[in-house]
Amino acid sequence: MVEIIDLRDNKNSDIFESLASRSQLEHGDVLDRVEDIVGNVRRNGDKAVLEYTAMFDKVELTSDKLRVTEEEIKEAYTKVDPKLVEVIKKSRDNIRDFHEKQKEKSWFSTDTEGVIVGQMYTPLEVVGVYVPGGTAAYPSSVLMCVMPAKVAGVSKVVITTPPGKDEKINPAILVAANEAGVDEIYKVGGAQAIAALAFGTETIPKVDKIVGPGNIYVAMAKRTVYGYCDIDMIAGPSEITVVADETANPVFVAADLLSQAEHDALASSILVTTSEIIAKEVQRELEVQLEALERKEIARKSVADYGAIIIVESLKDAAAVVNRIAPEHLELCIKDPFAALGNIKNAGAIFLGNYSTESLGDYFAGPNHVLPTSGTARFFSPLNLSDFMKKSSIISYSKDALAKVKDDVILFAESEGLGAHANAIRVRFQDNQRE
Amino acid sequence: MVEIIDLRDNKNSDIFESLASRSQLEHGDVLDRVEDIVGNVRRNGDKAVLEYTAMFDKVELTSDKLRVTEEEIKEAYTKVDPKLVEVIKKSRDNIRDFHEKQKEKSWFSTDTEGVIVGQMYTPLEVVGVYVPGGTAAYPSSVLMCVMPAKVAGVSKVVITTPPGKDEKINPAILVAANEAGVDEIYKVGGAQAIAALAFGTETIPKVDKIVGPGNIYVAMAKRTVYGYCDIDMIAGPSEITVVADETANPVFVAADLLSQAEHDALASSILVTTSEIIAKEVQRELEVQLEALERKEIARKSVADYGAIIIVESLKDAAAVVNRIAPEHLELCIKDPFAALGNIKNAGAIFLGNYSTESLGDYFAGPNHVLPTSGTARFFSPLNLSDFMKKSSIISYSKDALAKVKDDVILFAESEGLGAHANAIRVRFQDNQRE
Repeated sequence: MVEIIDLRDNKNSDIFESLASRSQLEHGDVLDRVEDIVGNVRRNGDKAVLEYTAMFDKVELTSDKLRVTEEEIKEAYTKVDPKLVEVIKKSRDNIRDFHEKQKEKSWFSTDTEGVIVGQMYTPLEVVGVYVPGGTAAYPSSVLMCVMPAKVAGVSKVVITTPPGKDEKINPAILVAANEAGVDEIYKVGGAQAIAALAFGTETIPKVDKIVGPGNIYVAMAKRTVYGYCDIDMIAGPSEITVVADETANPVFVAADLLSQAEHDALASSILVTTSEIIAKEVQRELEVQLEALERKEIARKSVADYGAIIIVESLKDAAAVVNRIAPEHLELCIKDPFAALGNIKNAGAIFLGNYSTESLGDYFAGPNHVLPTSGTARFFSPLNLSDFMKKSSIISYSKDALAKVKDDVILFAESEGLGAHANAIRVRFQDNQRE
Repeated sequence: MVEIIDLRDNKNSDIFESLASRSQLEHGDVLDRVEDIVGNVRRNGDKAVLEYTAMFDKVELTSDKLRVTEEEIKEAYTKVDPKLVEVIKKSRDNIRDFHEKQKEKSWFSTDTEGVIVGQMYTPLEVVGVYVPGGTAAYPSSVLMCVMPAKVAGVSKVVITTPPGKDEKINPAILVAANEAGVDEIYKVGGAQAIAALAFGTETIPKVDKIVGPGNIYVAMAKRTVYGYCDIDMIAGPSEITVVADETANPVFVAADLLSQAEHDALASSILVTTSEIIAKEVQRELEVQLEALERKEIARKSVADYGAIIIVESLKDAAAVVNRIAPEHLELCIKDPFAALGNIKNAGAIFLGNYSTESLGDYFAGPNHVLPTSGTARFFSPLNLSDFMKKSSIISYSKDALAKVKDDVILFAESEGLGAHANAIRVRFQDNQRE
């Protein structure tokens, strides 16, 4: 049974350190291997990509077979339940709608005579989306990663995903990619895919940014290429924190905790409640529901290792616990969830009320399910439109406007010992200059 | 004399590869040393910080002397020209104004009955600003890094900067920090400062994000701690590209190219022009102005190694060159600079017209001078308000709203083999549940 921790007297618990230890950054031993792979792909392009694909995916490909063909995409549709295709389309539309609402406009201001300052927004040119293969092949993640890039106006969106031993890609992945409007799909996975996207090969285009989840090799490779291109974040094991008061439904809460726990033995599901009764009911209900799960082995391990039920004095104390955990998913199963938002500082996605279950957000509501994990909601955000845009500052001064501030700029520049900076102002006000 | 490259016939030049080779990422040999320092500070806190400070800065400090005192700040004011203090205040106000215009609001939408989705914006809690010491101590950078954090509403802004051998910090740095409203200043520099900010020590607080320029050790350390906290970007040598047509003033253009070149022998100053006459006049003018510069040795090396004058057929071709270089600073010294913006995709800050010189932006206009360098304007943005904010998704569905989509969510979840996700929806519509 999952442990109940009473924080009403003692304000600390090992659970916080235990959660932090799950970070994918704590696997430095993988890094050397990944750096070798990245360096080899950077130097040798397709050749290295194909070698690693043979080694890790047990598939012998050639450069001309790396890219998924139109025929393969058509074939995929014949293998996917048409009802699922319809759901994929609906989900895609919701994701598109939500991300369109995030659109920001280039702007400028003209407060002072002769002065224009502003910001210009430009979409990235080429974006790479990493899509895991095997049992972790999730078409929902394809939609979540691709749609914001498309809405932002990215010219080319490229997917890399590891092939199965039969050289094929999961058909639902191909359908989701096609419905999302992906431009190119390549059969390459792991660190070699990340390196190929960051540096380009003879076949695979160099991208400006790589997004999407992946295993520890993918995460470490993204970290290695960061700076050569941008990346979305370094993803780690995921978590849910449910805040519940006495109005919560313990059956719902237990089900939601388990929906996170089934992902991964390292996933963490935590209930923070002001009610001892709810704590005990959820504890009992977890046992009941666990038994019925298909993925009960994974879920049981996750709950045992990283699950907890924490009792707190007040909703304010609950918020403090949430902010310390900085969970990927937060559910507020309380009487007035909107009123509690003001105290929440760190959370990837916040689900309000008893019917806003996490799986709704994972699949359908529209907000992104690529979220900051392992406590990084302290500083990272959900994948969103601005991840696919960049900004340029705009500065325009007339001669008169520059004249008014020239002495200040010259003084500041000279105080820093940068005479050429001062000179660039001075030459503009010397005699005998062309206007 | 700087080389003139005619791209009107041949569309390629070594200059592009030469620029890319300046990246700070190409110094892997430094990385091992930096990782040792970061690991040591992480494990040993203040003790390690003080050892490295003794080793690198030649100053023996104790934990209680790491933090700059109120008295030291007061003393700094007695050593700074009061006129400079006034300019610092004016510049600070301009930076504040510009970044206040970037404010984004939390929002939600209620398009569908019973459905609320949105995004909540929250400032980061604690931010660390790295400020280089020695000859590269720039109070203007203090303002540029600190003001956006303060405008965003960050609760605590902390500076780390290496002490001189006399244990002191450059007084202009202290004045700028104080005028910007910095909360704490610590006498520690290099990779040890970055590690202290990322993991916290007995004295120095753990931060959510580290921003600010630094040398190769600082850049590599930021890369190493990325993921434990956020970082702004990995800065490298800076560059300016000036696009000029026949209406440009060669004296102004040469002065602006040199204002970048004086920063650093690795800096790059490139003119792209449609006019052969301007090309030759700027080439000549560079020689004249170089002789008069205080930092002429640095500037001359920069211009010789990474400078170029490129002749192109049209302004559209000029934009293509700009987009390939993705310069930190771009000046459009052309007849109708605003009309050219549509073709510019990659540039950190864009200066429009003959009187919008780069040094105006470095010191005074308000937009940030912490800009993506070494071609990273392809995907990175100027430091800006959103660097100090994070987003949380908001999802609220009523029971009726969830009922309408429940079958879709269940189908999608089950297609991915995630039964507990489907179950979290199902339990909400089973009989005999509390509402």
